[in-house]
Amino acid sequence: MKKPSVPQGMRDFSPNQMLKRQWLFDSIKKVFIKYGFLPLETPTMENLDSLTGKYGDEGDQLLFRVLNSGDFLKDVKKKDAQKKVEELDYKEITTKVSKRGLRYDLTVPFARYVVQHQSEITFPFRRFQIQPVWRADRPQKGRYREFYQCDADVVGSDSLINEAELLQMADEVFQKLNLKVTIKLNSRKILQGLSEVVGFPEKMTEITVAIDKLDKIGWEGVEKELTERELSETAISKIQEFIEFMTHKNTTFNQEKLEYLKSFFSGNAAGEAGIIELEQVQQFLQGIPFVNNLEIDPTLARGLGYYTGCIYEIKADEAEMGSIGGGGRYDDLTGIFGLKGHSGVGISFGIERIYDVLEELALFPKDVSESTKVIFLAFDESARIWSLPFVRRLRDRNIATEVYTENKNIKKQFDYANKRNIPFCVIVGENEMKTGQLAVKNMIEGSQEMMSIDELIEKFS
Amino acid sequence: MKKPSVPQGMRDFSPNQMLKRQWLFDSIKKVFIKYGFLPLETPTMENLDSLTGKYGDEGDQLLFRVLNSGDFLKDVKKKDAQKKVEELDYKEITTKVSKRGLRYDLTVPFARYVVQHQSEITFPFRRFQIQPVWRADRPQKGRYREFYQCDADVVGSDSLINEAELLQMADEVFQKLNLKVTIKLNSRKILQGLSEVVGFPEKMTEITVAIDKLDKIGWEGVEKELTERELSETAISKIQEFIEFMTHKNTTFNQEKLEYLKSFFSGNAAGEAGIIELEQVQQFLQGIPFVNNLEIDPTLARGLGYYTGCIYEIKADEAEMGSIGGGGRYDDLTGIFGLKGHSGVGISFGIERIYDVLEELALFPKDVSESTKVIFLAFDESARIWSLPFVRRLRDRNIATEVYTENKNIKKQFDYANKRNIPFCVIVGENEMKTGQLAVKNMIEGSQEMMSIDELIEKFS
Repeated sequence: MKKPSVPQGMRDFSPNQMLKRQWLFDSIKKVFIKYGFLPLETPTMENLDSLTGKYGDEGDQLLFRVLNSGDFLKDVKKKDAQKKVEELDYKEITTKVSKRGLRYDLTVPFARYVVQHQSEITFPFRRFQIQPVWRADRPQKGRYREFYQCDADVVGSDSLINEAELLQMADEVFQKLNLKVTIKLNSRKILQGLSEVVGFPEKMTEITVAIDKLDKIGWEGVEKELTERELSETAISKIQEFIEFMTHKNTTFNQEKLEYLKSFFSGNAAGEAGIIELEQVQQFLQGIPFVNNLEIDPTLARGLGYYTGCIYEIKADEAEMGSIGGGGRYDDLTGIFGLKGHSGVGISFGIERIYDVLEELALFPKDVSESTKVIFLAFDESARIWSLPFVRRLRDRNIATEVYTENKNIKKQFDYANKRNIPFCVIVGENEMKTGQLAVKNMIEGSQEMMSIDELIEKFS
Repeated sequence: MKKPSVPQGMRDFSPNQMLKRQWLFDSIKKVFIKYGFLPLETPTMENLDSLTGKYGDEGDQLLFRVLNSGDFLKDVKKKDAQKKVEELDYKEITTKVSKRGLRYDLTVPFARYVVQHQSEITFPFRRFQIQPVWRADRPQKGRYREFYQCDADVVGSDSLINEAELLQMADEVFQKLNLKVTIKLNSRKILQGLSEVVGFPEKMTEITVAIDKLDKIGWEGVEKELTERELSETAISKIQEFIEFMTHKNTTFNQEKLEYLKSFFSGNAAGEAGIIELEQVQQFLQGIPFVNNLEIDPTLARGLGYYTGCIYEIKADEAEMGSIGGGGRYDDLTGIFGLKGHSGVGISFGIERIYDVLEELALFPKDVSESTKVIFLAFDESARIWSLPFVRRLRDRNIATEVYTENKNIKKQFDYANKRNIPFCVIVGENEMKTGQLAVKNMIEGSQEMMSIDELIEKFS
């Protein structure tokens, strides 16, 4: 029989990974809850008409589609019964054989949820959601077809206090994870203003996409791309001047840069609005302690996206890894489902990447993988049975405890305790049963002491 | 635009439901961890060859299949290019258009995991798993196409200490949930012995299935079914005598019933082995306090299943609901994937049903739906901005706190706090800013008091 396996691009999470993942997820969740965000879960499957057209053509092709139950060919036969199989176009009949697809991200299902349940929801609605999503991407190192996303969003509030809170949340999350990061902040309105000031308002997307690659391809690359997008030389050199001023010497945003921005965008409504947004967020953060770097970066573009206001992005200071989080404001989150005028602002933590960074920098706390604290090892079955009520007494004090159940020699039992990372072994034999004094071995220090069961319970409580 | 919806048989879990579900899941998880069980997650999709043939014909039809990515008709065209569409048989081409399916339960993926990762696993392997499963069942009240399962299993140990521990876990879980239950215990070997003693060893499954319905259809129904299965009158009346003795007066298992069992199965190896199993489990539970009823019930059959040893089932005492949990031992858990000789024993909590029972009996703790403890309401934007550092100070003391972000009148702000179940409102206006004394309203008692921010922090810490 062939050894079984999981589908390409998908993973089992072993107990050791799960303990770390749960610690990571719980750390983030606690911050969400502290900031008043509420948990939400949406189903794994959505109707395909909720999903298609939301992620561009490429996204549509990456959707996992679920075959209709029963006779999935029914609708095809109705229309194309006489056609030969070779004449069928798979793209055309996809919608006939499948009407459901797997969740591709958490944002679209959230927007769908808000529209569907608008009458029950108390706005502003602050929700967080930590669930897997699926993409039929070509699997490669670090890219999976099933992976978790972790989002917190506020819908139904225009207040920039939300942006200020989301930035604090990011700072607190990475403080808890003991991971030094830099959080960059900008407003899409700055980029809109830039495209207007240089005379190409209709090419805002192209300009944004090009600037977004600055880190990877340098100014030469950006210049080349802008030329290909048919921007004028004057426009390109104005963009170059803007970027150079904003990134010169170091990335610190100072009074000088603010003055430059103000004069650069003088008379341009979008640019001025963007500056006000950045100033407001700073005002709302007055007196709030930050552990990580928070930088204003007017060159931050944050990919395509649907953002219209503030945007932010998080990078680890000490690991070579792209963005490990980010988000922003989108003025019309629920418009795709027909509900206008509900502004949304959110943050997304790239938990799969964060996991990899924590692993790389060995930042998972050591005791995360210690789930069981104490195990009872016995020299024979009667000693094992004798110890059962004591195992229970420890558990009653909320101490995770096991009893080794097999008739194996004591060395094998210690092996089990070692492999399972259990820090304390209680060894029970004839002597221990007679005296009630138990031998307790500290597996980390290698030391051993004798104590009564009451002392044992006291020790761990 | 049509209002969006979720696929039939699937559900959104609103924040209010999620808070309750998380409390329920976490309560169970804590017990699992205390007993040394480790978390595991397997992917949503499995290769179809891992799933098909494992759940019977009916199960195969209820599998959700995922359409292959890209040109899913490729393989069909290769073989049947010249066929007319109407000649295609959907069952025949299913395997060609889809090679992955959604998880149908947690047991088969667990068995697959154990076989695939056998060299990395430390046995006995105690794992728990709480994940959704999918079944293309006809949706009806209380039956969904996506629902969570919650399993704990031990693989690689024959010791009945495991059974004793799983029963304790069940008792502790329902103690924590404050739900009175009865846990029934039997061994499949008793039922095997019964079919042998009455002379129809080859009809053990039929006899088990019939007895399993005793609760629903009464003895008459069982008798009718046994007659249809062509058991002899003598055999049927012997089964009747057995059942009547075991269920007479009340369900308490006593010395008299034990004596009867021993004489009934005298000389029958399976029956005698079953009695020893039940006695051993009782021995391992000596001195262990139980809050709920634990009953031995030699008529407990627990459906078809693959069980070979002890079986158990849990029912709520005060709600009309079928089984809300159960499990048992299966001698050859991993055999379906070619790894012989790994005995497994597990318990499954029917968390969707338990949720419904807790809801029906109003057993969810009241503060489960209080996620945010304090909200700051402000008379104007300057008061709101003034309060932001105080909001942060509360959060720094781990108190879930919000600030109401909108420029609405104070009544609307209170409405929000009310709907969100937030127990304390801090009202900030000109006076509060001047004096530093904040008005704190207790939303449950309706009382209000003035205090400084330090007193406020003290109050909630």
